[in-house]
Amino acid sequence: MIQVAVLGYGTVGSGVVEVIERNRQEITRKSGEEIHVKYILDLRDFPGDPYENKVVHDVEQILNDPQIQIVCETMGGLKPAYDFTKRALLSGKSVCTSNKELVAAHGSELMRIAGENKCNYLFEASVGGGIPIIRPMKESLTAEKIEAVTGILNGTTNYILSKMEKEGAAFEDVLRQAQEKGYAEKNPQADVEGHDACRKIAILSSLMCGKYVNYQDIYTEGITGITAEDFVYAHACGKTIKLLALSRTFQREGREEGLYAMVAPFMISRSNPLFMVDDVFNAICVHSDRMGESMYYGKGAGKLPTASAVVSDVADCARHAGKALMSSWDSQEASLADIDQISRRFFVRVSEDKESRALQTFESVSVIEADVAGEFAFITDSMTEEDFRKKADEVGIISRIRVEE
Amino acid sequence: MIQVAVLGYGTVGSGVVEVIERNRQEITRKSGEEIHVKYILDLRDFPGDPYENKVVHDVEQILNDPQIQIVCETMGGLKPAYDFTKRALLSGKSVCTSNKELVAAHGSELMRIAGENKCNYLFEASVGGGIPIIRPMKESLTAEKIEAVTGILNGTTNYILSKMEKEGAAFEDVLRQAQEKGYAEKNPQADVEGHDACRKIAILSSLMCGKYVNYQDIYTEGITGITAEDFVYAHACGKTIKLLALSRTFQREGREEGLYAMVAPFMISRSNPLFMVDDVFNAICVHSDRMGESMYYGKGAGKLPTASAVVSDVADCARHAGKALMSSWDSQEASLADIDQISRRFFVRVSEDKESRALQTFESVSVIEADVAGEFAFITDSMTEEDFRKKADEVGIISRIRVEE
Repeated sequence: MIQVAVLGYGTVGSGVVEVIERNRQEITRKSGEEIHVKYILDLRDFPGDPYENKVVHDVEQILNDPQIQIVCETMGGLKPAYDFTKRALLSGKSVCTSNKELVAAHGSELMRIAGENKCNYLFEASVGGGIPIIRPMKESLTAEKIEAVTGILNGTTNYILSKMEKEGAAFEDVLRQAQEKGYAEKNPQADVEGHDACRKIAILSSLMCGKYVNYQDIYTEGITGITAEDFVYAHACGKTIKLLALSRTFQREGREEGLYAMVAPFMISRSNPLFMVDDVFNAICVHSDRMGESMYYGKGAGKLPTASAVVSDVADCARHAGKALMSSWDSQEASLADIDQISRRFFVRVSEDKESRALQTFESVSVIEADVAGEFAFITDSMTEEDFRKKADEVGIISRIRVEE
Repeated sequence: MIQVAVLGYGTVGSGVVEVIERNRQEITRKSGEEIHVKYILDLRDFPGDPYENKVVHDVEQILNDPQIQIVCETMGGLKPAYDFTKRALLSGKSVCTSNKELVAAHGSELMRIAGENKCNYLFEASVGGGIPIIRPMKESLTAEKIEAVTGILNGTTNYILSKMEKEGAAFEDVLRQAQEKGYAEKNPQADVEGHDACRKIAILSSLMCGKYVNYQDIYTEGITGITAEDFVYAHACGKTIKLLALSRTFQREGREEGLYAMVAPFMISRSNPLFMVDDVFNAICVHSDRMGESMYYGKGAGKLPTASAVVSDVADCARHAGKALMSSWDSQEASLADIDQISRRFFVRVSEDKESRALQTFESVSVIEADVAGEFAFITDSMTEEDFRKKADEVGIISRIRVEE
């Protein structure tokens, strides 16, 4: 029997307790171990809760109990999660987490400490909620050189964009509705500005290249600038708009290999497998050298999907008790390429009086006919970000969205 | 260093050698072990092949070499693969295979033997080619009660159906083209009659319920009866036709739980995530209790994707040398429910003189308006297979296809 402590009895933490206690038969059958929750750490009391007798307020009780082999950290944020995680690992307790912020900021160090103490720091739930993606990348695509990861990694923004598309509504209106329904936070910045997706693609990028990718190096742009008119144009050319997080290798100067990562809204075509990923669903496309394209799709957030992913890590730790698994990446920092030299096509809107100037500057373009008054819109040929920016400045554009096939 | 032998130097076997020898750096980084191919077993010689010096003709050389820890069985078929696999496992060598026929027929016994000899029998490549599905079901959805698996599991039939849809062509013509291009076998029965998909859904069903599901118990219907007219109707009502393999739990007589599995062509709607899975791609949708819906998508066949999946199992065996992993299912045989009592809607075609009779018999239907002369077509309300069959016999129909949302 394996005894577990859960740190933080919020949405995900209470989900973890529920999944462990209610799906015990399945977990035992698939992991070969019976898993029990011994403690729940929270500052609050939960009178009337079915597990209220497990609630403790002092982390020392957990850290000093040799019966506890695995800790689920579902507190979120860096403080005190970082300190608690480190101390648990130092005492040989494995830690399973849904905390993408902590993994993106201190994952390398925490994995190193786990390795030194023959335990594990696992984080399947930190990206894509319930979608199995971390483990497939580590253990199924073992023989693959992963060349590109492209994901819809934030459910809130995908919900907002899907609603804007279906209802022709403005960003602010849909955001307000989403907040009322609890799909978006009162302070929605982390989601709508792309910071959440940025943490997640940093984690996937690190897995992809085996080195630490610093999330602060990743170019990040949110969806606050996307308007109802953008969707009118997208619809007119058979596309849609998604907030993509991507990480890609490319050849630079002949043979040396570069890696770049970014988060930004993109116009994508119907032939892109991410086209059909709507509402709160997430999906991750992986392109690798032998396998080609694969995709993983499911609920990217929510209490039970996320909790289920944490519990899959608990089962993994139970199966490998006393043994450190391979570290997902080492602490050497990857050097990301500047996106300035990356080429792609751009969707551009200008006021109608700038039509001829735009055509002159961008030369060959595909014009988009749509019912938006006073504007001229088109998609450019492929050009570098730097080149595009110069031309856009020259013309004076209303807005632009990057284009992916 | 781990030494491996590959049995069978055909398409998949040569892919396995290529992936191990060429992607060594990735494999070592992710598995922590350096893996080398020591022997390739084949009856033929391969003069000029870069690995010709590894080719041996006698399996005893492999079975008697204590340096060989892992065997890749990529021969296919039951004979002599079953015998070689059993002997390898009895001597404590783990076996990784792409052989769905053998897994579906003798998987339970081979996993038991592996467990008794502290080694492993792994078969990620047997379903969905390169798509990681076996490992996610075993190790990522650990806490999940899986309620339904629905897949497009055969690339050849999906290619044929996609072509028929796009070109309005007849089954026989597309099959002939596919054979010329090497996408379909000269003897295409195993694919077009659904037998291949049947083996694969038997394996996924066994994983789902933890008991042995006998593939011979699974209702199987191929695509040879699908015509160009069927696609005219599908198009008219915004649907498409796919060969689905599915396995589902359901409540029978109040609380007791049943499981049924089947392979058959289905009309599916645009809202179904499998709608967009075209050509040789495969995809598997999993519905489970906590996580809800997840989907796995990628190349279902092909030399390198399949080989890559075999090698991911090799890496897993290397990581767990000397330790038997949990068996995926036990040898107790699951009792599948008869599909007669399962309810669904049906798409039906009758000759136009039977319109009133059909309307009388099936009562409430949705008529499909399409440009097919001399016919009347509709989709029924939900009814049991048994009930449908009786009514269809009564009317005398041209054909029917099951409908899924």
